[in-house]
Amino acid sequence: MIRISLDAMGGDFGPEVVIPGAAKALERHPDIQFVLFGQQERCLPLLAQYPKLKEKSVFHHCDVAVAMDEKPSQALRRGRYVSSMWRSIEAVKTGQADVVVSAGNTGALMAMAKFCLRTMATIERPAIAAIWPTLSGESIVLDVGATIGADAQQLLDFALMGGAMARALFEVERPLVGLLNVGVEEIKGQEEVKEAGRMLREAGLDTMDYYGFVEGDDLGKGTVDVVVTEGFTGNIALKTAEGTARQIAEYLRAAMSRTLLAKIGYLFAKGAFDKLREKMDPRKVNGGVFLGLNGIVIKSHGGTDAEGFAAAIDVGYDMARNGLTQKIENDLKKYHARHPSSAGPEAA
Amino acid sequence: MIRISLDAMGGDFGPEVVIPGAAKALERHPDIQFVLFGQQERCLPLLAQYPKLKEKSVFHHCDVAVAMDEKPSQALRRGRYVSSMWRSIEAVKTGQADVVVSAGNTGALMAMAKFCLRTMATIERPAIAAIWPTLSGESIVLDVGATIGADAQQLLDFALMGGAMARALFEVERPLVGLLNVGVEEIKGQEEVKEAGRMLREAGLDTMDYYGFVEGDDLGKGTVDVVVTEGFTGNIALKTAEGTARQIAEYLRAAMSRTLLAKIGYLFAKGAFDKLREKMDPRKVNGGVFLGLNGIVIKSHGGTDAEGFAAAIDVGYDMARNGLTQKIENDLKKYHARHPSSAGPEAA
Repeated sequence: MIRISLDAMGGDFGPEVVIPGAAKALERHPDIQFVLFGQQERCLPLLAQYPKLKEKSVFHHCDVAVAMDEKPSQALRRGRYVSSMWRSIEAVKTGQADVVVSAGNTGALMAMAKFCLRTMATIERPAIAAIWPTLSGESIVLDVGATIGADAQQLLDFALMGGAMARALFEVERPLVGLLNVGVEEIKGQEEVKEAGRMLREAGLDTMDYYGFVEGDDLGKGTVDVVVTEGFTGNIALKTAEGTARQIAEYLRAAMSRTLLAKIGYLFAKGAFDKLREKMDPRKVNGGVFLGLNGIVIKSHGGTDAEGFAAAIDVGYDMARNGLTQKIENDLKKYHARHPSSAGPEAA
Repeated sequence: MIRISLDAMGGDFGPEVVIPGAAKALERHPDIQFVLFGQQERCLPLLAQYPKLKEKSVFHHCDVAVAMDEKPSQALRRGRYVSSMWRSIEAVKTGQADVVVSAGNTGALMAMAKFCLRTMATIERPAIAAIWPTLSGESIVLDVGATIGADAQQLLDFALMGGAMARALFEVERPLVGLLNVGVEEIKGQEEVKEAGRMLREAGLDTMDYYGFVEGDDLGKGTVDVVVTEGFTGNIALKTAEGTARQIAEYLRAAMSRTLLAKIGYLFAKGAFDKLREKMDPRKVNGGVFLGLNGIVIKSHGGTDAEGFAAAIDVGYDMARNGLTQKIENDLKKYHARHPSSAGPEAA
């Protein structure tokens, strides 16, 4: 059994998406037990429409819902201890749940998760890992927005955590890990990235293989299982890829409706286009994973629908079932046992 | 008449691409006069195949060709004063040419261009500007790889230079300029980006309109005419977009060849697919522009073909014809006259 707590009020649509999403995920994983937090006036009528879900859920009423545009500091002030977001995270802390999923605003969710769960002993700053569709399957890319301007030790921490997540998600023994860099000879990349590369090469880890530097176009190729970068670049790379995908989908749509022949061709190839659309469906890879906290937190896109929210629950389910937190803790322990001088929050 | 000097030995294929490319560009712009630099054994037989081009060209033999994998420092040592790359740049310095185009290695080209042409009086570090295809046309994105970790003043310089380039390229009076940032509330972006935003807002420039921050997905939308960022993020965003485009093209190719119906549909819609392919053709937007030097340098992709090299020449032609260097100089002068305290190389 995997116990998943849900912030039913999170996202642009709140319970109208979260509850049907949970019902979908339950169909795929009948061993899920849900703990739901939200405003009962909105949630209970919806829950009544999904009797199977209701049966597998415990519902807790919360007066306060964090708004999507609320600043993290304000959300913390107003929502700590009482909001559906806080209480769904707290359920992981108290052991009621194995993982929490929220479509609420990223900043508030990260602030509350840090405050409630705390970062792991040797981790200075957490990361958000995205699952990136590639030509050869999927990769993990981190950080996509939690930590701006990471130093070499933080990049190494990201590599360790991303490697552990890859082992949990892809069930590979030694995932291939690369550092995102620029290839232009003259500039040779940031000092921190080079230093992290040296550290990874010398670390002699048996939990991953260090590939070396990768460039922006390696993301789509799937050159490595885990791509490590700091949050500014990672966030911009992620959004650039999403934007490019939408741009090309728009070109394609326009091209296929321009002439009668194109329209006829579209009808014939409709099955293929449907497959393509499915392949490019952003809902299918929904679910950013917060890494480096004492507990698993999954962030769903705020604007997603029930299908997308169910995909985020799937990610949470996999992470909990494969013991992500324990894997990360073990890998960090192993590393620090071999490199006792390396920095943790105290040393930094 | 626009005089363009060419490094005939640059790129993965050298004169075999450069000379046919020049011939193509000349067809479109009969008022070009070329100055070619390269090894005569390889260039002259090729040139003989294009009599029209030969007529409009002056050829200079150079013994030395910079290799594509040569380190900038090595290229400078070996190729200064004597290589086709150096001499084609020097032609701009001495006034023999209005612009130089090279498909040679970026690091060496930037090193030589800096050494030969020098940066403009108030510019500390140059930038490479890319022309980015968007849903609403084209944008300029800079820096895509020359300057890592720009400070606020450098970002402001990039904004000024990118704005001038937009006026030269798009012939708009007040281009819209945005700063690339991450949108997650909690982290609020890098200090330098925020500071550059403040400076741009307070600058009261009449040569551009400052839009504010943009995110990665605004690149493909074409939200602004000019997107400003430092070279690490810009390079990764550019390559991520290129990689994503190739990834989706690959998905599309696979989808259209999977079933008989899809293949039939493809035949019907072939005209539309050809249009789409043309739209996504990376050769069409070839040509990075080096900004901030006393002269215009255009970098073509090293692996491009004659069509792509001709597109890079087109960019050089437009930049020279529209007086890019003068526009940048004027804009910088205007800005510094209003902000006498702001940094130049001396003040930095």
